[in-house]
Amino acid sequence: MTLFSEINEQPERIKNLLSTQRKHVEKIALEIKKRKIEYIFLAARGTSDNAGRYANYLLGAMNGLPLALATPSLFTYYKKPPVLKNALVVGISQSGKSPDIVSVLEEGKRQGCMTLSITNEAKSPLANASDFVLDIKAGNEKAVAATKTYTTELMAVAMLSAALSGDKKQWAELGKVSGWMKETLKQNDFIAQAAQRYRYIDQTVVLGRGFNYATAFEWALKMKELTYIIAEPYSSADFAHGPIAMVESGYPVFAVAARGKVFDSMLGMLHRLRDQISAELVVISNDKKALALAQVPLTIPDETPEWLSPLVSILPAQLFAYHLTRAKGYDTERPRSIRKVTETK
Amino acid sequence: MTLFSEINEQPERIKNLLSTQRKHVEKIALEIKKRKIEYIFLAARGTSDNAGRYANYLLGAMNGLPLALATPSLFTYYKKPPVLKNALVVGISQSGKSPDIVSVLEEGKRQGCMTLSITNEAKSPLANASDFVLDIKAGNEKAVAATKTYTTELMAVAMLSAALSGDKKQWAELGKVSGWMKETLKQNDFIAQAAQRYRYIDQTVVLGRGFNYATAFEWALKMKELTYIIAEPYSSADFAHGPIAMVESGYPVFAVAARGKVFDSMLGMLHRLRDQISAELVVISNDKKALALAQVPLTIPDETPEWLSPLVSILPAQLFAYHLTRAKGYDTERPRSIRKVTETK
Repeated sequence: MTLFSEINEQPERIKNLLSTQRKHVEKIALEIKKRKIEYIFLAARGTSDNAGRYANYLLGAMNGLPLALATPSLFTYYKKPPVLKNALVVGISQSGKSPDIVSVLEEGKRQGCMTLSITNEAKSPLANASDFVLDIKAGNEKAVAATKTYTTELMAVAMLSAALSGDKKQWAELGKVSGWMKETLKQNDFIAQAAQRYRYIDQTVVLGRGFNYATAFEWALKMKELTYIIAEPYSSADFAHGPIAMVESGYPVFAVAARGKVFDSMLGMLHRLRDQISAELVVISNDKKALALAQVPLTIPDETPEWLSPLVSILPAQLFAYHLTRAKGYDTERPRSIRKVTETK
Repeated sequence: MTLFSEINEQPERIKNLLSTQRKHVEKIALEIKKRKIEYIFLAARGTSDNAGRYANYLLGAMNGLPLALATPSLFTYYKKPPVLKNALVVGISQSGKSPDIVSVLEEGKRQGCMTLSITNEAKSPLANASDFVLDIKAGNEKAVAATKTYTTELMAVAMLSAALSGDKKQWAELGKVSGWMKETLKQNDFIAQAAQRYRYIDQTVVLGRGFNYATAFEWALKMKELTYIIAEPYSSADFAHGPIAMVESGYPVFAVAARGKVFDSMLGMLHRLRDQISAELVVISNDKKALALAQVPLTIPDETPEWLSPLVSILPAQLFAYHLTRAKGYDTERPRSIRKVTETK
């Protein structure tokens, strides 16, 4: 099974990216600091857009950089790109081929901005449109559902943050991610068993907040691509502003609640769902209080720091989606209606 | 029924906002032009966040302004707000009370940015934290599901765009919105009947693109708040990057396809859904080709220009959500689990 083996490749790919690309990332960070960059303008779609969500929180919290997510149709259909002054224009794309993402980078270059692509194809049209290319070195990804290109994109963003802040502690923690990932993957048999319980669900919501807002989106996307259930991601705050109305007793809610600054807020939402509404919970966490509320608790290592938890917490989510796909009798390698490279304008 | 009467109030509220606030909006636009504003940093939640999505496309396409959606938890839980240089910091909130949105404006002010709030409560904490207040003058909104505060927020954003560009044609078109809205509301009886067909749906996806990306989100939100079905909004481009896999024959898809720059792209997606997958379509459009593909066609006036179509196209969507709520036997005024003002940090 290619998807399963690609999920299991991730600890090695991350380790390799960190060791081979650190110098190059530090060079890019130096160039960013030289320029008068005031904000990041980022274009991405699908899984890569979720890596962009991580960048939004991480580069904001660690490096003080505001981030605007590009609306590619302004560049392609409307032909009215905004004026990009003092922006670092970033494109994230596994294939580097989607014409709308390439358009944003080309326009950024035309307007004289510094451009950076984060991609698995260093010779792609996206890479050609960029001043700097950060090759995520994930190796050929054969499964249609992206896994190792997602975590290597996150790693690339995390390395850029560490290089920008020049913080040795950040680099030291990056060195531990591969080990935390390996530890997490050991739950495979448990997850294969636990997924059986959800054989007949056809919908769910996926909650996360802060750094793990991205994880909620990516878990939901894997569920939709592979198991065909409708899975909608939310920050726990947005969820409280309306959508919580649709949850009733027994409704399955998936949540990512790593310990850290937003943990108490997530825990409050989990209590509300469990104690007041009797929702069914699948929870990824390194905190006993959150795990205790779940029908299915999925753990990440205790010492995982919040800023790196998205790289680790997505692994049990990927395995869960993989095993639920099998439980439902679907094809894990070739989901219906989608292809590996989607070229949208 | 308060919700129904508030939906029907919208043409008058819009008209009143336009006539009473134009001078004030022009004053705000003048101040924006005086400052060296390079991008907009916008904070909002729920329905107001969807008004922010409209601002993202409109102020980009018409006024060349890039827009970054704030991540409020960076300001509240993480206490690490990004450095906001040359940004116009905007908060949109019906009640002006959500502490996280207020935090973003306060931080913007602390950093010396120009701050603007768009709100229905000119004496709220949000208004107090702002240099300029654009009062949307929607009158007291009693129904929990926001309708008239959404369209007045959109109108406020559209007026700001017209004032920034100083384009007489834009102002003239704004004067026609109220009439287009009235025309659209005449479909009420048809929509009440058509909604019966969906009495037993429990999920849907809602598609829109460009200016109507916001409409897709707002339609989906009304469906979730009122009918408790799971309704996930997508741009047709993001939808093609994976989630389309979950659609099978008969699956209900709602779409907003106003004529304009992204119409061909939307029409292509509707054909793919109808011709290849045999999905069930509810379509809001002013184009015969798009309407002809739908089991339930909902029309907006032929001459509605694309940039103002979100103010008109949301009306049949609101009526559809209202009548489906009644068809399902739920309370249109007091949805379960949510309150009118949600104060999140």
